[in-house]
Amino acid sequence: MSKNITTRAEDYSKWYNELVVKADLAENSGVRGCMVIKPYGYAIWEKIQAELDQRFKETGHSNAYFPLFVPKSLFEAEEKNAEGFAKECAIVTHYRLKNDPDNPGKLMVDSDAKLEEELIVRPTSEAIIWSTYKNWIQSYRDLPILINQWANVVRWEMRTRLFLRTAEFLWQEGHTAHATKEEALTEAKQMQEVYVDVVENIMGIPVIKGFKTESERFAGADDTYTIEALMQDGKALQAGTSHFLGQNFAKAFDVKFTNKEGKQEYVWATSWGVSTRLMGALIMTHSDDSGLVLPPKLAPIQVVIVPIYKTDEERNTIGSYADELITKLKSKGISVKYDDRDTQRPGFKFAEWELKGVPVRVAIGARDMEHKTAEIARRDLQTKETVAQENLDNHIESLLNEIQENLFTKALNYRKEHITEVNSFDEFKEVLETKGGFLLAHWDGTPETEEKIKDLTKATIRCIPMERKEEEGICILTGKPSKGRVLFAKAY
Amino acid sequence: MSKNITTRAEDYSKWYNELVVKADLAENSGVRGCMVIKPYGYAIWEKIQAELDQRFKETGHSNAYFPLFVPKSLFEAEEKNAEGFAKECAIVTHYRLKNDPDNPGKLMVDSDAKLEEELIVRPTSEAIIWSTYKNWIQSYRDLPILINQWANVVRWEMRTRLFLRTAEFLWQEGHTAHATKEEALTEAKQMQEVYVDVVENIMGIPVIKGFKTESERFAGADDTYTIEALMQDGKALQAGTSHFLGQNFAKAFDVKFTNKEGKQEYVWATSWGVSTRLMGALIMTHSDDSGLVLPPKLAPIQVVIVPIYKTDEERNTIGSYADELITKLKSKGISVKYDDRDTQRPGFKFAEWELKGVPVRVAIGARDMEHKTAEIARRDLQTKETVAQENLDNHIESLLNEIQENLFTKALNYRKEHITEVNSFDEFKEVLETKGGFLLAHWDGTPETEEKIKDLTKATIRCIPMERKEEEGICILTGKPSKGRVLFAKAY
Repeated sequence: MSKNITTRAEDYSKWYNELVVKADLAENSGVRGCMVIKPYGYAIWEKIQAELDQRFKETGHSNAYFPLFVPKSLFEAEEKNAEGFAKECAIVTHYRLKNDPDNPGKLMVDSDAKLEEELIVRPTSEAIIWSTYKNWIQSYRDLPILINQWANVVRWEMRTRLFLRTAEFLWQEGHTAHATKEEALTEAKQMQEVYVDVVENIMGIPVIKGFKTESERFAGADDTYTIEALMQDGKALQAGTSHFLGQNFAKAFDVKFTNKEGKQEYVWATSWGVSTRLMGALIMTHSDDSGLVLPPKLAPIQVVIVPIYKTDEERNTIGSYADELITKLKSKGISVKYDDRDTQRPGFKFAEWELKGVPVRVAIGARDMEHKTAEIARRDLQTKETVAQENLDNHIESLLNEIQENLFTKALNYRKEHITEVNSFDEFKEVLETKGGFLLAHWDGTPETEEKIKDLTKATIRCIPMERKEEEGICILTGKPSKGRVLFAKAY
Repeated sequence: MSKNITTRAEDYSKWYNELVVKADLAENSGVRGCMVIKPYGYAIWEKIQAELDQRFKETGHSNAYFPLFVPKSLFEAEEKNAEGFAKECAIVTHYRLKNDPDNPGKLMVDSDAKLEEELIVRPTSEAIIWSTYKNWIQSYRDLPILINQWANVVRWEMRTRLFLRTAEFLWQEGHTAHATKEEALTEAKQMQEVYVDVVENIMGIPVIKGFKTESERFAGADDTYTIEALMQDGKALQAGTSHFLGQNFAKAFDVKFTNKEGKQEYVWATSWGVSTRLMGALIMTHSDDSGLVLPPKLAPIQVVIVPIYKTDEERNTIGSYADELITKLKSKGISVKYDDRDTQRPGFKFAEWELKGVPVRVAIGARDMEHKTAEIARRDLQTKETVAQENLDNHIESLLNEIQENLFTKALNYRKEHITEVNSFDEFKEVLETKGGFLLAHWDGTPETEEKIKDLTKATIRCIPMERKEEEGICILTGKPSKGRVLFAKAY
């Protein structure tokens, strides 16, 4: 295993990029800003998808599929939304190629096949979906509509990074329609909670719940609920957002319903999404200088067994024991890989599975077979212990639970140590530069101050925390009165 | 339920279009040629996906994800493939919109944001994937690569029909790389068998296995294996294809590997796919003039229970019994809907669930409760029987299996009755016009004759059946010698 990666201390950003590629998660493609998600990375994403999808269905949502393309006239209907995405759109203008007469064997765009109306590759689907909902909704009996879509979207980002910011990414986007404002607000908050559940309990990433300031809101939303995570380099990452869209899209697409009293009203809306960006959060929360660290609930391989043998006889003895263990583990729903490759030495295998973040490694040698023991290594703590073969399956099962919990606790402790209350702008700048992390500070509530702080420090208001203390204070920049602290950080 | 649909006898094509919309499966969108797959239709597609995905994994494949866009220079690298798709490509030429100075509030394409190289929205992913595999493959140890992708693709069709032919559709595409020709051939055939398994045993659609003639092959393939189904109107539908790509893409993208003997060789390839088109096959194989008919293994709702009551007391009594039944059915993994809507009468509900193809309907009235009976209706045969409440869950479970089998058998019998051996061109034309279906006829093996038959009759060679008799004969059109019959039909 000669795949040493840059350490986090040396260059965090380089560490991340190398890790993603060397752990076989993803790589850059021949298409500007678009990534290839490799099988190992995709297997993790599939597990995240399954956990989310199950919860979406449990909360009454169905999946559906809407077109990839948005005609320009629909795209521009909700003006704020259009404005928010106009500068980063991939635009389809033609529908045919023809032979290039000057370059035999090459093709060129056929100018006779120009579209009358350009098509935008969806950066998000509110426009196409609300133009469809218009035909589905007449009466209060048609509401609520609770739909989710798993899809690819495209936002033409100039500076891209694997998983964190790519021109094309995969996501889910929920789009719901409701008869009342209260119901839509409840839905938006409910989906924020679903995200908290998956991100904390499955991905092991602690988050802070809050809502966005006006300038950080989704384009077209009246309110954006967010969950904010903290990465190991002290930068924040927005892990999921749920938007209360008010009646903005209903008005843009003229979607009205007849209420129980027989009156016409505009429909209330929400939308909510998480994306392959979560993969970036997962990597940056748990991984270390030896490579990926995965919470057991998302690990495509939870346990790897490496036999250590010199003779064929030893190999066979260990093999028979491993077979038994594998059967027991599989019956507990634990995924196991038996790595008896002849082409690689144990040390190489250890490093490889470490790099790929397999939570538990079991090594079994001839001496272990004699003593009825096995060596167990935990990926999270990088510790080893020799344990009895008896009840090993149960031991591994509880170890996996322990690792799952430990990863969350460790990340939570890091997060706790990196939330700092600051009371002056000097303190703000100093903590931001020396310690990083989240800063809780008073703000006068104006977009101007927010903008100015951002210009001066690159820190943004990640959210107004939902569980914040009511507290009188003065804005760190302007000295104007404030009713509570908001959460600042530099962010991905 | 006033949703009467056109009968098949009246107008088969209209029947299909109305059924798809009225059974809430899909509808046309505001985007030319693109469909919206509605929740009920998508739930069926999800079940098809799950069955396929499980089998892909069991046969050693992993999922991954490759970019939506293919740069023109990669797209045109494999010339036959490029030629096959060039005339139906959506092309991205710009990456930004700007405000239209002449139309306040409107947007226009920003001509300053023209791409240096145009991007093709993938019509299929061989080009982008093989340009990626190039970097993954050095030695025989890197082979095989067994990858599948679930994705959307775009082919700019001029005449579209829901599910059967849409500009954007959803599919899976497997792309594998092998060290030897034999291994690639085995893979291509294996995946054809996986498709047979799902299409016959899950979707209940009998198929004929074969390979395509040169003119019907996938653009860029050396051989295309296909499975061909027969619809109720006597037209064929290609339900899935698996391509042996030879070394064509390896040569186009210069993908070589060092074999065990240390020599450089081009890599062998396959690709294989099925799409949302299968939904069209499903609908047209089983459904009738009352609406959709679904095989139980794909029905989002397998059993609907409709209580028939006059008083609240009756409603409660039936409700308690239904609760018990539902619990028992769910423990058997059977999906149940209890339809106790107060807003609709039983007759309306019956028609609605019939239209939506729910395999088994249970109606329970006050008299049934007295006699400890229930009325069971089978969607496939449209028959009703009164049965004892005792063991009703077991009865329903076997009924679902019976319906699954019956649908396949019925379709198989229809197919058997609609394969005709014909021995002259006159007979060919007559059978084609009067009876339709598959025609087994001798053909001289030339593309010219194939083309001429197509021009004269609109029938194409669906496949050269794999299990065909060796039989000397003479071509129906030219009288030239032939070594076996091939399968003709008009096709979707």
